[in-house]
Amino acid sequence: MIKVGIIGSTGYAGAELVRILTAHKETEIVWYGSRSYIDQKYASVYQNMFQIVDAVCMDDNMEELAEQVDVIFTATPQGLCASLVNDEILSKVKIIDLSADFRIKDVSVYEKWYGIGHKSPQYIEEAVYGLCEINREDVKKARLVANPGCYTTCSILTAYPLAKEGLIDMSTLIIDAKSGTSGAGRGAKLPNLFCEVNENMKAYGIATHRHTPEIEEQLGYASGEKVVLNFTPHLVPMNRGILATEYAKLTRDVTYEDVKAVYDKYYADETFVRVLEKGVFPETKWVEGSNYVDINFQIDPRTGRIIMVGAIDNLVKGAAGQAVQNMNLMFGLDETEGLKLVPMFP
Amino acid sequence: MIKVGIIGSTGYAGAELVRILTAHKETEIVWYGSRSYIDQKYASVYQNMFQIVDAVCMDDNMEELAEQVDVIFTATPQGLCASLVNDEILSKVKIIDLSADFRIKDVSVYEKWYGIGHKSPQYIEEAVYGLCEINREDVKKARLVANPGCYTTCSILTAYPLAKEGLIDMSTLIIDAKSGTSGAGRGAKLPNLFCEVNENMKAYGIATHRHTPEIEEQLGYASGEKVVLNFTPHLVPMNRGILATEYAKLTRDVTYEDVKAVYDKYYADETFVRVLEKGVFPETKWVEGSNYVDINFQIDPRTGRIIMVGAIDNLVKGAAGQAVQNMNLMFGLDETEGLKLVPMFP
Amino acid sequence: MIKVGIIGSTGYAGAELVRILTAHKETEIVWYGSRSYIDQKYASVYQNMFQIVDAVCMDDNMEELAEQVDVIFTATPQGLCASLVNDEILSKVKIIDLSADFRIKDVSVYEKWYGIGHKSPQYIEEAVYGLCEINREDVKKARLVANPGCYTTCSILTAYPLAKEGLIDMSTLIIDAKSGTSGAGRGAKLPNLFCEVNENMKAYGIATHRHTPEIEEQLGYASGEKVVLNFTPHLVPMNRGILATEYAKLTRDVTYEDVKAVYDKYYADETFVRVLEKGVFPETKWVEGSNYVDINFQIDPRTGRIIMVGAIDNLVKGAAGQAVQNMNLMFGLDETEGLKLVPMFP
Amino acid sequence: MIKVGIIGSTGYAGAELVRILTAHKETEIVWYGSRSYIDQKYASVYQNMFQIVDAVCMDDNMEELAEQVDVIFTATPQGLCASLVNDEILSKVKIIDLSADFRIKDVSVYEKWYGIGHKSPQYIEEAVYGLCEINREDVKKARLVANPGCYTTCSILTAYPLAKEGLIDMSTLIIDAKSGTSGAGRGAKLPNLFCEVNENMKAYGIATHRHTPEIEEQLGYASGEKVVLNFTPHLVPMNRGILATEYAKLTRDVTYEDVKAVYDKYYADETFVRVLEKGVFPETKWVEGSNYVDINFQIDPRTGRIIMVGAIDNLVKGAAGQAVQNMNLMFGLDETEGLKLVPMFP
Repeated sequence: MIKVGIIGSTGYAGAELVRILTAHKETEIVWYGSRSYIDQKYASVYQNMFQIVDAVCMDDNMEELAEQVDVIFTATPQGLCASLVNDEILSKVKIIDLSADFRIKDVSVYEKWYGIGHKSPQYIEEAVYGLCEINREDVKKARLVANPGCYTTCSILTAYPLAKEGLIDMSTLIIDAKSGTSGAGRGAKLPNLFCEVNENMKAYGIATHRHTPEIEEQLGYASGEKVVLNFTPHLVPMNRGILATEYAKLTRDVTYEDVKAVYDKYYADETFVRVLEKGVFPETKWVEGSNYVDINFQIDPRTGRIIMVGAIDNLVKGAAGQAVQNMNLMFGLDETEGLKLVPMFP
Repeated sequence: MIKVGIIGSTGYAGAELVRILTAHKETEIVWYGSRSYIDQKYASVYQNMFQIVDAVCMDDNMEELAEQVDVIFTATPQGLCASLVNDEILSKVKIIDLSADFRIKDVSVYEKWYGIGHKSPQYIEEAVYGLCEINREDVKKARLVANPGCYTTCSILTAYPLAKEGLIDMSTLIIDAKSGTSGAGRGAKLPNLFCEVNENMKAYGIATHRHTPEIEEQLGYASGEKVVLNFTPHLVPMNRGILATEYAKLTRDVTYEDVKAVYDKYYADETFVRVLEKGVFPETKWVEGSNYVDINFQIDPRTGRIIMVGAIDNLVKGAAGQAVQNMNLMFGLDETEGLKLVPMFP
Repeated sequence: MIKVGIIGSTGYAGAELVRILTAHKETEIVWYGSRSYIDQKYASVYQNMFQIVDAVCMDDNMEELAEQVDVIFTATPQGLCASLVNDEILSKVKIIDLSADFRIKDVSVYEKWYGIGHKSPQYIEEAVYGLCEINREDVKKARLVANPGCYTTCSILTAYPLAKEGLIDMSTLIIDAKSGTSGAGRGAKLPNLFCEVNENMKAYGIATHRHTPEIEEQLGYASGEKVVLNFTPHLVPMNRGILATEYAKLTRDVTYEDVKAVYDKYYADETFVRVLEKGVFPETKWVEGSNYVDINFQIDPRTGRIIMVGAIDNLVKGAAGQAVQNMNLMFGLDETEGLKLVPMFP
Repeated sequence: MIKVGIIGSTGYAGAELVRILTAHKETEIVWYGSRSYIDQKYASVYQNMFQIVDAVCMDDNMEELAEQVDVIFTATPQGLCASLVNDEILSKVKIIDLSADFRIKDVSVYEKWYGIGHKSPQYIEEAVYGLCEINREDVKKARLVANPGCYTTCSILTAYPLAKEGLIDMSTLIIDAKSGTSGAGRGAKLPNLFCEVNENMKAYGIATHRHTPEIEEQLGYASGEKVVLNFTPHLVPMNRGILATEYAKLTRDVTYEDVKAVYDKYYADETFVRVLEKGVFPETKWVEGSNYVDINFQIDPRTGRIIMVGAIDNLVKGAAGQAVQNMNLMFGLDETEGLKLVPMFP
């Protein structure tokens, strides 16, 4: 059994890790880290886990953790993982960081968009960007994986094949994304109150959201050129789900079949990416609770653009599910172990 | 592998059967019955099942089905199962009926509350009321199981130990229940439209709801007396979940510990019944997607009443999950196979 | 123009006062009190009021306020109004207190249920319980009105005629109430986060909720006997609305017409109480945004009980609307001025 | 008093007309048309109107209606108004058509996008497109007004000043719009059921939605060039509200102040258009129940684009409110009569 430690186990992403790993055949969670709830029973923080998890919450001691576990998940705010990791820890344990600390290769970009100094830039080069469908082989060999962001996972995978094959003009790419509210975390903040979110919708972080450079970097690798794009997130009154609607000019005249073939080239063998049938567009509910990315597209001959749409569950493929997928790869397990989650509808 | 046929696989309860059985290790669904969608791909009716279920929908031919499968689930409106079942079918196949046709032993009560004639009253006696925690041994031997209703499962299990042990005055029992909207089914009816249900709440079927006699009959067996009670269902703007708040006069002076001991006597060894810790009351979200029943109670010394609260996911323990639990018992499998579903939160 | 000051204008009830008074023909709000947002523009706290309210928030200085306004609304936590009010203030200004400070005549009951000492018990006797339909004449003469609670307004008005006429056995009365989440206020607390409330339902304050003694006292006056009852509130995933389902034994054999006549005796001339037509039961959405109380009942001959159902908008008839109704009465205005709000559906 | 007839009074837009006109000082509704509910009490179809509206529903007889009323609102599916209107009717009564029949000047465009033949193209020229802020003077003189669509109202007004002043490259304009579910109407259709919409989000009508040519035509007039754009609507789990996020390349280097000045040039004196303060972006809840359009923008120097965001209540400014605003203009009333609706929050 792989021994697992979670730092930040009482946030929504951490709790989703617990939900998934509880049903994973090869793992045992031995450390439920949560600075806010030390010594409290985990199941008293998440009553859904009553009689399922008996453990109490522990502190964030990564050094001690490294002695006890095989893999550490850090589901914590930006900066924490970078401030704790060191050579000794990395020599003993694999780390999957759900924060943004090791996602961006250019440390100055990270520091500019996140507004904090990076505490351990020496590990950025080594860290593998854990978008499994794209970096699978590197993930298998990694000891430090930067688990992608929720918006970014959905945004990148939706456009990746077309960026890679040069089918779209990257300078015209616009991503309009919508997210359920669990993405905002479990902090007790006024804008996240039920009565503020329910029956309401808004854009936020316009032209300044931190997932922008992450998407630009990855799609830059795919397309082989520097990418600068608009990314606009929106808050939607639902718990889970991200929908990304993406617009770009096509670089050449293509048919539905041409584009479908390009998507199939990259995704036909991917368990967790479902390119839907012609004319059927993703809905977030169809992936809820699962690790799927649902994708489809529409060519608009009037404007010469293609509209791509992708959907994920932000807590699963957008966070905990992808983290477990990375863990499976890093430990040589079946990539889908623990992740054959059937979407729940309704 | 147990071969399964589902009649009514495209209603919400039927779809939940598909979700659960898809992940069940000992079963294979070979017949997706759906009168409304014959010859259409199941995954086009429930797109969450895309690339998971490849089958097309079939008709309701129970005779042919009996040749092909080991167990039939009927997730259909009242009257259908009773109109199809016969000796030959029952000799070949086990039946788990999710409708009300075989739940009520007194056929005149059934006919009065449901307003239809019963087409095969000769099987009522034989049918076992499939509330697993109470009738486990009978279920194991049954060939025809009447799967309990959603409100009834929650209402009965919440009060059962106290009724059985004579702790409450059954003539004072009042059940005020609240349900998510999936209980209303997938029929395209105006009152179930999003804009009619959302931001709204109402009582319905006051003093006339069909689950009333079912609760009365079962709690009558438990208490050893004829039970007549008030049951009021309410519609709540959420997809899943039933919460039952139950009120009764205590028959004697008891402490928290006394009552807790009574609940523990019946439920301490039950996997799917969780009597919560003192002062912690059920919330529907804590059981969502799972087969759990969460229960707790509060003694009110001012009024001499006890208030009991129970919560289930109406589609799981209130329908498909319990049906699978019954199947597991009927086929000698581990009762929890396919049902170790961790509640999803948020 | 009546000059109005609001202490606590940035809570949800305070904001609803602003919404209603903004459209009231005889009033002008001159003081937007809010300890948390002093010197900030009111419209920056509630952006819906942009270009409608230009004022900035002020502190809670009741003495100064008394110099400037004709009536003060206190929409603040328990204890504040009682700690500020004094003879001089009451000699200058009318006060409508939306907190519980002056609702309960027996100060020991207040102190026991609220867990705080009462700072000015000398005004309790004088204060008029502002349930307009019942205490209209006293309200007209009052200088200090205790505006009823949200649950209590709905619970009392739903049962009042039957209690008054002795049609129900008060010792059997049980009130099962459900509320939207705005009743929990705008405080940034974890249990009120969108993801905790949405798709969830729970009971809370079972046998201990503070509105219990208020309901008992008022229905005690109505029935002429000491009333002890069970009141159970529930939290529902919607912004606004309270639904109260009430159960009691009938004291004598009555028909629908008998009971309807009793309701009509008290409510036929009441603008804001609508006893619905036979068989039509209240839904919270039908009163949303309005000052209506919708009521209906069902006799259950099987159990000898009557089930009464009432619905209000908790922020209007349950708080701000009723407060304005009280103000209208106190100042000799048309009781419905500013309150002819048509319910918004959907 | 202006006598009003409504054809299609029991759809959501029709019901909103009733809500608004009920509180309008200069009008009296004398005809509640509803083919589906003829002879039924209007308040039994919309129980919120109990004791407010006593009338029964009538048929769609426009000829008879023209004898009885001063203005007819048609809140009906496409094609109905065009099939009923004739010279005699237009000589007797003013018509405000909430359908698309007279919105598009090029009948071939209408017939192509709507897939039906136009029954009275001879009135298209005369009909005034009732976007009051833009065509106010023409509306005043009109006898036939084409009330704009919900998405179109929001989409056009959000971009109008910049299109008019040549600040944006119209060939790059992309509109990503999100709507609450009341926009889908009150028809009992499976995709609009609560359990299908709740906790779900999707794009629909991608590159084919019928509001596209309407937006293109109007922004074409504004910019003085032929406009072809992408418009993508999305369905959001809320009752009311449209949010439009619009992207375009700036045609020249501009500052925040430059753009703000352009918006102010067109909207500073408009009661119902609120250009929010710098950095504050529209939320649909801030306009709920009101006739406001809230707008703001963000310049992105990285991409050279401007992102504009607009929000309306789809049933008010997007339908009934704007229709009443048009009526006010046509009859020489105060343009805001009946429309000083304060947004309801929460």
